[in-house]
Amino acid sequence: MTDQQHKVVILLSGGIDSATTAALAREQGFSLYALTFQYGQRHAIETEAAVRVAKALKVAQHALHTIDLRAFGGSALTDSIEVPKSADASQIAAGIPVTYVPARNTIFLAFALGYAETIGSADIFIGVNAVDYPGYPDCRPEFIKTFEQLASVATKAGVEGTRFTIHAPLIAMSKADIIREGHRLGMDFGLTHSCYDPTSKGLACGFCDSCMRRKKGFQQAGIEDPTRYAPRPGD
Amino acid sequence: MTDQQHKVVILLSGGIDSATTAALAREQGFSLYALTFQYGQRHAIETEAAVRVAKALKVAQHALHTIDLRAFGGSALTDSIEVPKSADASQIAAGIPVTYVPARNTIFLAFALGYAETIGSADIFIGVNAVDYPGYPDCRPEFIKTFEQLASVATKAGVEGTRFTIHAPLIAMSKADIIREGHRLGMDFGLTHSCYDPTSKGLACGFCDSCMRRKKGFQQAGIEDPTRYAPRPGD
Repeated sequence: MTDQQHKVVILLSGGIDSATTAALAREQGFSLYALTFQYGQRHAIETEAAVRVAKALKVAQHALHTIDLRAFGGSALTDSIEVPKSADASQIAAGIPVTYVPARNTIFLAFALGYAETIGSADIFIGVNAVDYPGYPDCRPEFIKTFEQLASVATKAGVEGTRFTIHAPLIAMSKADIIREGHRLGMDFGLTHSCYDPTSKGLACGFCDSCMRRKKGFQQAGIEDPTRYAPRPGD
Repeated sequence: MTDQQHKVVILLSGGIDSATTAALAREQGFSLYALTFQYGQRHAIETEAAVRVAKALKVAQHALHTIDLRAFGGSALTDSIEVPKSADASQIAAGIPVTYVPARNTIFLAFALGYAETIGSADIFIGVNAVDYPGYPDCRPEFIKTFEQLASVATKAGVEGTRFTIHAPLIAMSKADIIREGHRLGMDFGLTHSCYDPTSKGLACGFCDSCMRRKKGFQQAGIEDPTRYAPRPGD
């Protein structure tokens, strides 16, 4: 365990990846300052999951930000474009998905940077992943590296010599590896939420890209999936 | 005049600098998509000024975003730190001012990038200035350049070949030069607002850093200052 007082900012969405990232930061002995965004998702279930995960990990502080990305449109997650469904994980769309939100991780990291500078931290943890999400430009190592460079020229702390580090420990891991890692760290994935299109009662649809990746990940990891999926039509 | 259909995003605060920047973009024939933030300022007067300027410049669209930078604290503009006053422009504080807001321009440009990508624009105009604001890290050419690099790796458009440009036409100009330029472009600076600490009736205090720069700028430009200043105590 390293210095318990070392503060880090962790972007917490309420999904498996950010929960595992937070658990990794916690394992390293850091004091966690969690940051969660409500950004015009069609459901508050993700935020509730983030709050559950933050409590389970005993974060020092949990900042919730509401931002309105709907004003720009352009993504199935923030407007009325239909979320793609497929019954077969092999059909998960190639290329840049319609669920891509323009500049989303840039906006999230910008806020995280402001938060980090304010609390006197030089470290930001983000659960981006370039393996399962090859289509997202802002999940790539090149993006993370360039944001680090920006952080050091953009801030008072940077000008005064602080070198910011954006930690993306999951960036090269498969979903199965992430689930195994979270499991090793004792993370209860029943607290997390992944579905892009849950029912009104909060059950996962089981067929959106995110559900398909989650199901496949648990199968490949050989770990029981605690997710409550909605019954299939006709079941 | 160039292509009237060429869209650009302009960050519009309601102050002299962003108004002049917008007028410059308009002069070049661009179609303006203005973006204004309400970020826990202690007064809505800036937003009202931005709306007046946007109308005067006949923008194609004006997006207003409310974001809560107060959650982080750390600046006289967003929390209860006292705004510095001086009766003499020579006393304007050196170094990084207490009115610096951690990562503010990074957050603003991140949103502008999302807006630009959504409307199919590769151009963002920002009225930053490194002459009158040498203490702000995110008003320097180095910051602007690094953000351009980030924009091209952070977005779907960038991955597909778009090269984003962050236009900062005022970055090396004095306040007097900016006022002369805005005046040449027919900008009515009576629509704009600069004061960090206005009265309840919206009058400028006349003594904060921002008022001092504004007064001095009009004096040096030899142009009449249309600002309505509050009477001095004892007047």
